[in-house]
Amino acid sequence: MKIGILGPAGTFSETAAELWLKGKEVGKRENVEIKYYETIFDVSESLLRKEVDYGIVPIENSLEGSVGETLDVLSSENAEEMRIVGEVLVPIKICLVSQSVAKIRKVVSHPHALAQCKQFIRERLKVMIKDVEIKSVDSTASAAKLASQSEEIAALASEEAARRYGLNILEENVQDKDSVTRFVVLSSLASGIKTAPTGKDKTSVLIYLKDHPGALYDVLGEFAQRGINLTKIESRPSKRAMGDYMFHIDCEGHIEEEEIKEALKGVESKVAMLKIQGAYPMARK
Amino acid sequence: MKIGILGPAGTFSETAAELWLKGKEVGKRENVEIKYYETIFDVSESLLRKEVDYGIVPIENSLEGSVGETLDVLSSENAEEMRIVGEVLVPIKICLVSQSVAKIRKVVSHPHALAQCKQFIRERLKVMIKDVEIKSVDSTASAAKLASQSEEIAALASEEAARRYGLNILEENVQDKDSVTRFVVLSSLASGIKTAPTGKDKTSVLIYLKDHPGALYDVLGEFAQRGINLTKIESRPSKRAMGDYMFHIDCEGHIEEEEIKEALKGVESKVAMLKIQGAYPMARK
Repeated sequence: MKIGILGPAGTFSETAAELWLKGKEVGKRENVEIKYYETIFDVSESLLRKEVDYGIVPIENSLEGSVGETLDVLSSENAEEMRIVGEVLVPIKICLVSQSVAKIRKVVSHPHALAQCKQFIRERLKVMIKDVEIKSVDSTASAAKLASQSEEIAALASEEAARRYGLNILEENVQDKDSVTRFVVLSSLASGIKTAPTGKDKTSVLIYLKDHPGALYDVLGEFAQRGINLTKIESRPSKRAMGDYMFHIDCEGHIEEEEIKEALKGVESKVAMLKIQGAYPMARK
Repeated sequence: MKIGILGPAGTFSETAAELWLKGKEVGKRENVEIKYYETIFDVSESLLRKEVDYGIVPIENSLEGSVGETLDVLSSENAEEMRIVGEVLVPIKICLVSQSVAKIRKVVSHPHALAQCKQFIRERLKVMIKDVEIKSVDSTASAAKLASQSEEIAALASEEAARRYGLNILEENVQDKDSVTRFVVLSSLASGIKTAPTGKDKTSVLIYLKDHPGALYDVLGEFAQRGINLTKIESRPSKRAMGDYMFHIDCEGHIEEEEIKEALKGVESKVAMLKIQGAYPMARK
């Protein structure tokens, strides 16, 4: 089995893949290969080229909100050929890591990690290290890699990344507040991978509303009237014009359950576009 | 009059400030001073410290979606002391700028601008310049500043930034798709700045729902039943737990209009928290 994730080795995506594998019966761990890609878009492309069986990508963080690139992939043309077949919750623990503390002049990390450590940077880092330079890089893991190449660079990265790149953990849990990142597991439609109802599932859909007051209200009514709980509703630009949105909606239940099926039939009759993105077991918290 | 924006000089925030001033009767342009800050949070702080009369910050782009940091400021403690008193729409035209084309090895820009030029980077830049390195920096303007300091660096930045830093425009309009960024104009509550109804206004509110199926549906009903159009609804993490959200809602109309007042009274009775963020004239498209 091949799994595509954001590289390099040691990102939180890798932790997500490991956690997901634990919950699955995949036989021997040696039979699993993790392949690394530069962008979330590249992960989705690798799936469609059949380079990998699954793609695991971050979709939202409990502090930072949605990952725009993933929502965009899920509403792109590629999405027609993909399904969400699972989700994983990863607790985000960020550490300040480096070779040694004495020479640090620059601290690097992924913009999301920098954002999640705003307070630590403002109140501690800028006090600890005079004129410290803060820089964004592509991932927390590549930040750790950079730190392993220069004593002047420290990284905000995972414990896992520190281990992989032989760095010291100067300070643990430097995130302003604990957070969790939700990852979705994608498979290509062509792979024929199915996710049968488990009794505790989620269904994800994408809708494009008709343009009239109350359009969203009417759609939500199809869920509310059946007592179906929405776990998420997120607007994303339709990319047509300012103020024109699509909505990503997650509800509790599996598309093969009668009630969900009927609700979505109702939704379909009221929107300009409905796309089922997948039905899959809810992640354990 | 003093206006606080994201610096350095030449960001799209500066274009927003100029556009907003044009639509306002501010007397002599010399009486206006633009002050630059490093982060959106810093702009909000400067407002509360009375260093500036207005803060103008980006809130959403028609391709990339919301600016998380601004939504966070608008739901922070600082927000209690601030109001949205206006909005401005800025068309985003991104250029590839540098001192000369021959020596470019690195292209830098703000992550949002990089995201908006994904296709150009993938299909053109990586073909034009072998092994080109792409790097995120704090703003499009600081990207241009860096390009002005090294012939090896090109920036994806505004025409305005190219002018300010004496750079050549190698290619215009390299964004994948035209987009518009909406900025909001903030003032402190203490300043007493008021925005009377103009007949074409927007009201922005922040709500925190009670936790039961249909909670959002019930709230939207207060608007739908009165035929009030929502121009935006955006979920943001409440920062309490994964899957727990607040909602930023913009509706057409001014809080001083009877219908809006009643709708919001209805909303207030159904939610755990309602905060009025401001009522202000809609930007002209």
